[in-house]
Amino acid sequence: MLDLKPVEYDETSGDVRAVFDEIKAARKVPDVNNVWKYLANRPKLLRRFWDELKEVMAPGAIDPLAKELIYLAVSINNGCDYCIASHTASARRAGMTNEMHEELLAVIAIANEGNRIAAGLAVPVDPQFR
Amino acid sequence: MLDLKPVEYDETSGDVRAVFDEIKAARKVPDVNNVWKYLANRPKLLRRFWDELKEVMAPGAIDPLAKELIYLAVSINNGCDYCIASHTASARRAGMTNEMHEELLAVIAIANEGNRIAAGLAVPVDPQFR
Amino acid sequence: MLDLKPVEYDETSGDVRAVFDEIKAARKVPDVNNVWKYLANRPKLLRRFWDELKEVMAPGAIDPLAKELIYLAVSINNGCDYCIASHTASARRAGMTNEMHEELLAVIAIANEGNRIAAGLAVPVDPQFR
Amino acid sequence: MLDLKPVEYDETSGDVRAVFDEIKAARKVPDVNNVWKYLANRPKLLRRFWDELKEVMAPGAIDPLAKELIYLAVSINNGCDYCIASHTASARRAGMTNEMHEELLAVIAIANEGNRIAAGLAVPVDPQFR
Amino acid sequence: MLDLKPVEYDETSGDVRAVFDEIKAARKVPDVNNVWKYLANRPKLLRRFWDELKEVMAPGAIDPLAKELIYLAVSINNGCDYCIASHTASARRAGMTNEMHEELLAVIAIANEGNRIAAGLAVPVDPQFR
Amino acid sequence: MLDLKPVEYDETSGDVRAVFDEIKAARKVPDVNNVWKYLANRPKLLRRFWDELKEVMAPGAIDPLAKELIYLAVSINNGCDYCIASHTASARRAGMTNEMHEELLAVIAIANEGNRIAAGLAVPVDPQFR
Repeated sequence: MLDLKPVEYDETSGDVRAVFDEIKAARKVPDVNNVWKYLANRPKLLRRFWDELKEVMAPGAIDPLAKELIYLAVSINNGCDYCIASHTASARRAGMTNEMHEELLAVIAIANEGNRIAAGLAVPVDPQFR
Repeated sequence: MLDLKPVEYDETSGDVRAVFDEIKAARKVPDVNNVWKYLANRPKLLRRFWDELKEVMAPGAIDPLAKELIYLAVSINNGCDYCIASHTASARRAGMTNEMHEELLAVIAIANEGNRIAAGLAVPVDPQFR
Repeated sequence: MLDLKPVEYDETSGDVRAVFDEIKAARKVPDVNNVWKYLANRPKLLRRFWDELKEVMAPGAIDPLAKELIYLAVSINNGCDYCIASHTASARRAGMTNEMHEELLAVIAIANEGNRIAAGLAVPVDPQFR
Repeated sequence: MLDLKPVEYDETSGDVRAVFDEIKAARKVPDVNNVWKYLANRPKLLRRFWDELKEVMAPGAIDPLAKELIYLAVSINNGCDYCIASHTASARRAGMTNEMHEELLAVIAIANEGNRIAAGLAVPVDPQFR
Repeated sequence: MLDLKPVEYDETSGDVRAVFDEIKAARKVPDVNNVWKYLANRPKLLRRFWDELKEVMAPGAIDPLAKELIYLAVSINNGCDYCIASHTASARRAGMTNEMHEELLAVIAIANEGNRIAAGLAVPVDPQFR
Repeated sequence: MLDLKPVEYDETSGDVRAVFDEIKAARKVPDVNNVWKYLANRPKLLRRFWDELKEVMAPGAIDPLAKELIYLAVSINNGCDYCIASHTASARRAGMTNEMHEELLAVIAIANEGNRIAAGLAVPVDPQFR
């Protein structure tokens, strides 16, 4: 039994409430989504994951939309249903259009093809790529 | 035994040579890299993979650099050493800087963290994400 | 169509019943859980999997709790929802506390990070590790 | 081209040197291993990964040896050759015997079997595991 | 939010309808299944995937049943619940018996075991296999 | 450090020698390949893996060649270089032609595409497939 219940905002205190407040402020949402409510049962992991996520996904050399597409690509590749649902939503908020979504799926598909073909043929790395 | 040798340009003919010529022209390179030389042993797959790759990776709603970053992210996630080497090179040619490479690795890392945490906590998908 | 129905204890006979009896005795449970009821449709696989599981998960050089944590880590990494649910339960029965669960998720997360970073950087194995 | 060279200790300065010094002190080793020398080309990621690793792998509710076994299990599952080599070494330093190594491999093997069988049979989660 | 609804036959036109008609004719079914109805929201990907699927899965050097078993093995390995369900159905239509299904699961299980053991032991490739 | 050396036939005794003899007889080869020589350092795992492998890969409802193709497909999907090399060799011995190898790679490629697309679109399982 996982014995895990989502922790609602009113039940939080201390650092868990602080993280929830930071998420709500950063994303301008009235409530946090489920992954945070479940993570609230594991407070140290909640804090570490949020701090890292906020730093990594911030605008940088790669723009936020491209970062969301990359995050979503990894989630689809790992078959994480929750992450696919929530990060498709984040990508949409960051500006992903239907056309981009279609192309994202196509790039993930061809990359998986290429990966399996190269592995299956045991292709040695070209000297110029080393 | 894989019994596969790389097929050099001078040994090609017909459709294999046509694909090699298309790759050299599209990429403005004097020779194709190893994955194509090995795929040349499997001519139908060579043609199909090249046609799909060229179509999918072309400029579209997602720009070519972002597409290369996504392709590389999937390759890293699948642990395909050949693809990591060759697509890090493609991403560089498409404009990936050291800063972008660092951020790409960071996004892949946090996405894998998030995926495993969400799976491990058996988080149900929020109604608004369905 | 999978065409598979769970096989209930009263419907079993022969070696399937013998496996069910062994599981119930070994785990001191009144009934087997779903994976066994579905596997009962594939009797040879049921017998082989049970025999191997019982031997591998028994106390040995690694204690049963650590074995359960390792099994759960692999299941989370493979994204097997059924296995995550059932082996979180087994790990709890073997003594996994909330703190251990939090640390388990943290180790899985950092290992995935490290794995992707090392692959993405194409780090060669140090001579002393060979 | 990855264009990445290992950064040796004498070439480091600032925060990269600080991280190298922390690793050498924490592990009582005369030099850091390759993953750190390559990560030194990506200084922010180096710092973040080291800080998280040191916190997560420290003694806690799960003992350091069991943590190393879990880290190694994930690395084997992800097929990360570098990580398998370096974390087999860490696990040995933390006390892993040959017998433990054999049992670790056996648990990883049976978990992968169980994961694929449960997925292939589309087994629904038992109500008591929810 | 995925914002994706299944597109029913009566709502289709142009190339999407053409693909739906081809699927219905090729498989002799009165309606297409969900993956096609969802893919209809991404028309270029729908067309490309269908064209490739139909070509690849056609009778060839490998017979259609063996191809279905291979497709299903990959889907189980990737943990794709939708694909497991739909391709177990295709495999049944192509002639997969209960005995074959049992053996398929057993081969997938042992291959995963062997893969993890070989990776975990860092076994070098024998010269005769190169 | 893995600290593992291949165990040569002349160094074996007892059950390890018995397994080596069984492999040599079953495969009509003068020597076992590397995975067995490394596994010989872990004798219980060696025995269990060999017994299971020999039983599972034997002729049955699925013929030995198709079993080899499935094993190879899983190995390619898991990116296990050793297993790809050794099981491409086994598949060749069992009768895999170049045309079959090409089609095998094509089926693996399209299955990976389909798996990622279905996951990315969050396609619900059709009622008739349940």
